[in-house]
Amino acid sequence: MRIYDIIAKKRDGFDLSDEEIAFFVCELTKGNIKDYQATALLMAIYIRGMSDREMITLTKEMAISGDTLDLSELGITADKHSTGGVGDKTTLVVTPIVASLGINVAKMSGRGLGHTGGTVDKLESIDGFKVSLTPEEFISQVKKVGIAVVGQSGQLAPADKIIYSLRDATATVGSVPLIASSIMSKKLAAGSKTIVLDVKYGSGAFMKTTEAAEDLSRKMVDIGKAAGRNMAAVISDMDTPLGRNIGNALEIKEAIDTLKGNGPDDLKEVCLTLAANIIALSLGTDQESARKQAEAALESGKAYEKFREFISAQGGNIEVIDNTDLLPKAEIVYDVLAPNSGYITNMQAETIGSASVVLGAGREKKDDIIDYSAGIVLYKKTGDKIAKGEKIAEFHLNDKCRLPQAEKMFLSAVTISDKAPEKQNLIYKVIR
Amino acid sequence: MRIYDIIAKKRDGFDLSDEEIAFFVCELTKGNIKDYQATALLMAIYIRGMSDREMITLTKEMAISGDTLDLSELGITADKHSTGGVGDKTTLVVTPIVASLGINVAKMSGRGLGHTGGTVDKLESIDGFKVSLTPEEFISQVKKVGIAVVGQSGQLAPADKIIYSLRDATATVGSVPLIASSIMSKKLAAGSKTIVLDVKYGSGAFMKTTEAAEDLSRKMVDIGKAAGRNMAAVISDMDTPLGRNIGNALEIKEAIDTLKGNGPDDLKEVCLTLAANIIALSLGTDQESARKQAEAALESGKAYEKFREFISAQGGNIEVIDNTDLLPKAEIVYDVLAPNSGYITNMQAETIGSASVVLGAGREKKDDIIDYSAGIVLYKKTGDKIAKGEKIAEFHLNDKCRLPQAEKMFLSAVTISDKAPEKQNLIYKVIR
Repeated sequence: MRIYDIIAKKRDGFDLSDEEIAFFVCELTKGNIKDYQATALLMAIYIRGMSDREMITLTKEMAISGDTLDLSELGITADKHSTGGVGDKTTLVVTPIVASLGINVAKMSGRGLGHTGGTVDKLESIDGFKVSLTPEEFISQVKKVGIAVVGQSGQLAPADKIIYSLRDATATVGSVPLIASSIMSKKLAAGSKTIVLDVKYGSGAFMKTTEAAEDLSRKMVDIGKAAGRNMAAVISDMDTPLGRNIGNALEIKEAIDTLKGNGPDDLKEVCLTLAANIIALSLGTDQESARKQAEAALESGKAYEKFREFISAQGGNIEVIDNTDLLPKAEIVYDVLAPNSGYITNMQAETIGSASVVLGAGREKKDDIIDYSAGIVLYKKTGDKIAKGEKIAEFHLNDKCRLPQAEKMFLSAVTISDKAPEKQNLIYKVIR
Repeated sequence: MRIYDIIAKKRDGFDLSDEEIAFFVCELTKGNIKDYQATALLMAIYIRGMSDREMITLTKEMAISGDTLDLSELGITADKHSTGGVGDKTTLVVTPIVASLGINVAKMSGRGLGHTGGTVDKLESIDGFKVSLTPEEFISQVKKVGIAVVGQSGQLAPADKIIYSLRDATATVGSVPLIASSIMSKKLAAGSKTIVLDVKYGSGAFMKTTEAAEDLSRKMVDIGKAAGRNMAAVISDMDTPLGRNIGNALEIKEAIDTLKGNGPDDLKEVCLTLAANIIALSLGTDQESARKQAEAALESGKAYEKFREFISAQGGNIEVIDNTDLLPKAEIVYDVLAPNSGYITNMQAETIGSASVVLGAGREKKDDIIDYSAGIVLYKKTGDKIAKGEKIAEFHLNDKCRLPQAEKMFLSAVTISDKAPEKQNLIYKVIR
């Protein structure tokens, strides 16, 4: 078998055999396929597409290209994955809810890049929190507490790591079979029985339309089912940032507020939907009672208590959780004022995410340093009425030079009109 | 401007602007574009195609990516290029014909790879012949004799060199805009005013059909015209090897025979057609009188005399030309016999070329060593009647271990049937 023939076959629009896909992934992982051959194939896949069978095989081969976690000793296990959004702190709320009901979450999470943040960065804004555990510490903490969240291991799905880095530089990121296989290969390797996907659509999401989000969701659910996992994908709106806080410490604070019952409605709704789906799939209950269990875990304080246990077990300073004033604080808090009166009809999440990166909350390049205290608090959101000069948001920052650019970006992302916008559904659909 | 955006644009099927194409070629030549980004773009070009305007710009930018020859001091200049065939020794016959009529040929030529041979290898089978000249020696020889043929300079169209090496490994060779720009960028950089292309079609050629050959020819002629050159493309049959001799010294011998008036009809016809087109374009005469001038140059011995002068000027031993028995000779001459009686209806040129490579006449890999004396002499060709056991060809070789494989390949390429085949036109069309 030769990589040349595999490239030529896909170039001409033919389906690759399972053996050809396995050869590509295996030889790529061993370093026997040149980068420039891999990207030629990736471009051919981008343009010609892949059948469901090809995509399922590609994902499976990528999943077994490195270490795979055996979580069987943990009993009931669940994982969630978000395709990435602005202000998305759902992992911090959902995992304690389900763990408080006996569902174990052994989670590997990413760092932020571009306009979206990463759970691992957010957790690092808590004094003392360790994002690296040995495999033994990781499993033992899940056994004890029911949750552990660590950074992505380089040994998990190394083929995906190679492919992803090449796609990023060659305009082959936006291919549904490549996105689906990239996400699902890591989730399959990470070993949980139940996987619930949080697929975002809209201006702040990778998928700009509901159709694209639904297509990707259906494919990922099919891949997971083919690998014997319990699968669901919740498709939710990311036209506007989720919740009110954007930025690492600010998002930890909002997650804690939500766990204490004081979170914003949109964030709470997405978290409860995700949690209910995990519960229903993991415990075999119907959706309605699963939802009730999730709500009860939140309202009773059990989820909050579980979050405290989790943070404490992983080295985080528990005082910070009980008193969020101890989280990293920015020196400058700047009020952004509405330039005119009317209804907010649009709040472009991607641009607002990028403005938060300018303030220091995220990374433009992989090795940029994050300012945990920096970010944006939204005082008004899409649909709200606002008067000229009224406070629309608060910027938290330490480097005042960044203010003019961030403010210009932020205001360019906000549309204020005379007429109130139509209300959009937060949850578009759940694919099972 | 970013290469990422250029890749994405072509990926989505849009035309690239002249500036974008110039940016790609220039930055690629400077080493600022990664191989894996270049191949992603090449695959997108392969699948999405290029407009004529894009292709003309790509060729122009590749042509000026390195040295360009200024031949203005040479007056009337002409170049020919063959897309490569088996037994194709036309350069050796055509260039002395036109040079004997005052048309200067300052030619850079390639080496053989795979089933096709290269002019430079053939010339090296003449004792003493030097294929490297300094630029000054090169120009001065053309001034004095009217012909010089040297190996391709690495400084000519370096962008093509980079692109070509990547295409070869990534299944992006067979793209008409990429083939046309590759050939024409080198021809434009080499500076001749008239360029006549010898485009082959059939089993031994890169283009398998007349349609594909015509499409490529039209595109190359358009590119040359857009650059202000006199252009023609002769489309000829390469289903069957050209002439009777395949292999370096054997082809030199056949070229000399042809210059002396004793060559096979098919070779003579292709050479006269190419020469007539060069003459008509260079001297502004009509096709009919150009053809007559070419025939006269051959019949009068003026072309042969010019060939002697050329070989001698470039260091070749002139005694070898006058007595071809002095050319390298193989130790073993083996008769290949017809396995049954009938008419030869097919003689797959590509497979016969590959059999000659097995005998030692060519290279499978770039650094293989050539046996100048090795090759094949065809005693019968497509359309001929043959009896079982009659000699169909002669193998010339020094390594008898190679015989069984070469004979098996050769015989697999020959079809003998009861019915005589229809006669095919040797020259399909001339595109001007």
